[in-house]
Amino acid sequence: MPRVATGESSLSRAVRVLEAFTAEEPALSVSEVARRSGLHVATASRIVGQLVEHGLLGRAPDRTVHVGMRMWELASRAAPTRSLRDAAMPFLEDLHAVVGHHAQLAVLDGDEVIFLERLSARDAVVNYSRIAGRLPLHISSSGMVLMAYGPPELVDRVLARPLESRTPATITTPDQLRAALEQVRRQGYALLTGHVHPDAAGIAVPVRNALGEVVAALSVIVPHDARAVSAVPALLAGARGIGRSLG
Amino acid sequence: MPRVATGESSLSRAVRVLEAFTAEEPALSVSEVARRSGLHVATASRIVGQLVEHGLLGRAPDRTVHVGMRMWELASRAAPTRSLRDAAMPFLEDLHAVVGHHAQLAVLDGDEVIFLERLSARDAVVNYSRIAGRLPLHISSSGMVLMAYGPPELVDRVLARPLESRTPATITTPDQLRAALEQVRRQGYALLTGHVHPDAAGIAVPVRNALGEVVAALSVIVPHDARAVSAVPALLAGARGIGRSLG
Repeated sequence: MPRVATGESSLSRAVRVLEAFTAEEPALSVSEVARRSGLHVATASRIVGQLVEHGLLGRAPDRTVHVGMRMWELASRAAPTRSLRDAAMPFLEDLHAVVGHHAQLAVLDGDEVIFLERLSARDAVVNYSRIAGRLPLHISSSGMVLMAYGPPELVDRVLARPLESRTPATITTPDQLRAALEQVRRQGYALLTGHVHPDAAGIAVPVRNALGEVVAALSVIVPHDARAVSAVPALLAGARGIGRSLG
Repeated sequence: MPRVATGESSLSRAVRVLEAFTAEEPALSVSEVARRSGLHVATASRIVGQLVEHGLLGRAPDRTVHVGMRMWELASRAAPTRSLRDAAMPFLEDLHAVVGHHAQLAVLDGDEVIFLERLSARDAVVNYSRIAGRLPLHISSSGMVLMAYGPPELVDRVLARPLESRTPATITTPDQLRAALEQVRRQGYALLTGHVHPDAAGIAVPVRNALGEVVAALSVIVPHDARAVSAVPALLAGARGIGRSLG
């Protein structure tokens, strides 16, 4: 690929531009895109122009730019986790209808958990996950499940860095984490109370494919009280249903 | 942007590579990517390598490539229709629970209808829409609603091309189309029976924002029988709820 003066490929710069957009700020001015992507305004402007031309970005009447419909279409129609999401959706809906609050499906990506889907009630308890959002593994019940049933070296990698703390309840020491993962494996589910927010509890179970491999975590976020654990049977049943649908 | 010998930018080639992947065939060999994108194998291989490096494509152990998690993440976290989809989701779930079969949310993109979300029952009637899938406007009840309440020049553009026929029921003449759109405006909903498949009926209603502008179509696909029209009140109520949530 041709490289420009700085030695960076055009594609690499385009990716930096696309990375500037977030769920909180999906529409940005070109100068804000330049600031966030660390590109000169003229460079950012040129790359934005090319991305708009291909529909990967769209430009609003107020001149702000946003992720384009074509980008969403290309990414979604052949999404890597599409068959998993399709298999899970009916069970996620049932779980949401029965348990209320938030029902979510997550997978491991790198050393983080990424949420593929989230169904939320209007008056649900606070929750920081989002579709296509990421969380560190150790502060999310889904992440704990994916770690507990993941490759052993994953835990080593997570422990090679400091464990970020979000609330007083967050697990912050290696011993706590290893003990908590052992408990997840023993129980068959992860229950994290107040790790992301003091008022919320996350409960997650593993989703296994036909080979018995854990391919995802199914979870609910409910108020942090004594009844939280009562969601476990519905989660386990849902996870079995998803596994069966995956074939 | 630097251009290669053929005069085509790297970004443009990258887009052609990304366009090779479909819902039906989400994993392709590099030579298949080359064939579909019209690039030389060596060129396709180089661009695939760069896209894999940025996570926009992923490579499986069998060497096939697929849309990468990073691509999906960048497109989804700041998706252009995210606020609409978020507002609609609870109502779409309710509609799906009550009416069964398929419940879907669609918007206009170019001169086609694109489906943002679809909730499907396992034993539902046949349906050709897919998430991030497109259909010609005149064969989809959602498309008919978006045309009926869309800019007048849209109908002219649609009629400037032959109306593709999928079943004997498909509208194929300008007079039929104009009459059908007039009926949609009079009734407040579109009911298309057997236009995509003889056994299925699509029913769609407009979703309006606070300014009264039609921003989407809410629809269900049900068996093609006399009871199909009974879904209309639930659709109208759902569309009002979505509009209120949009604020």
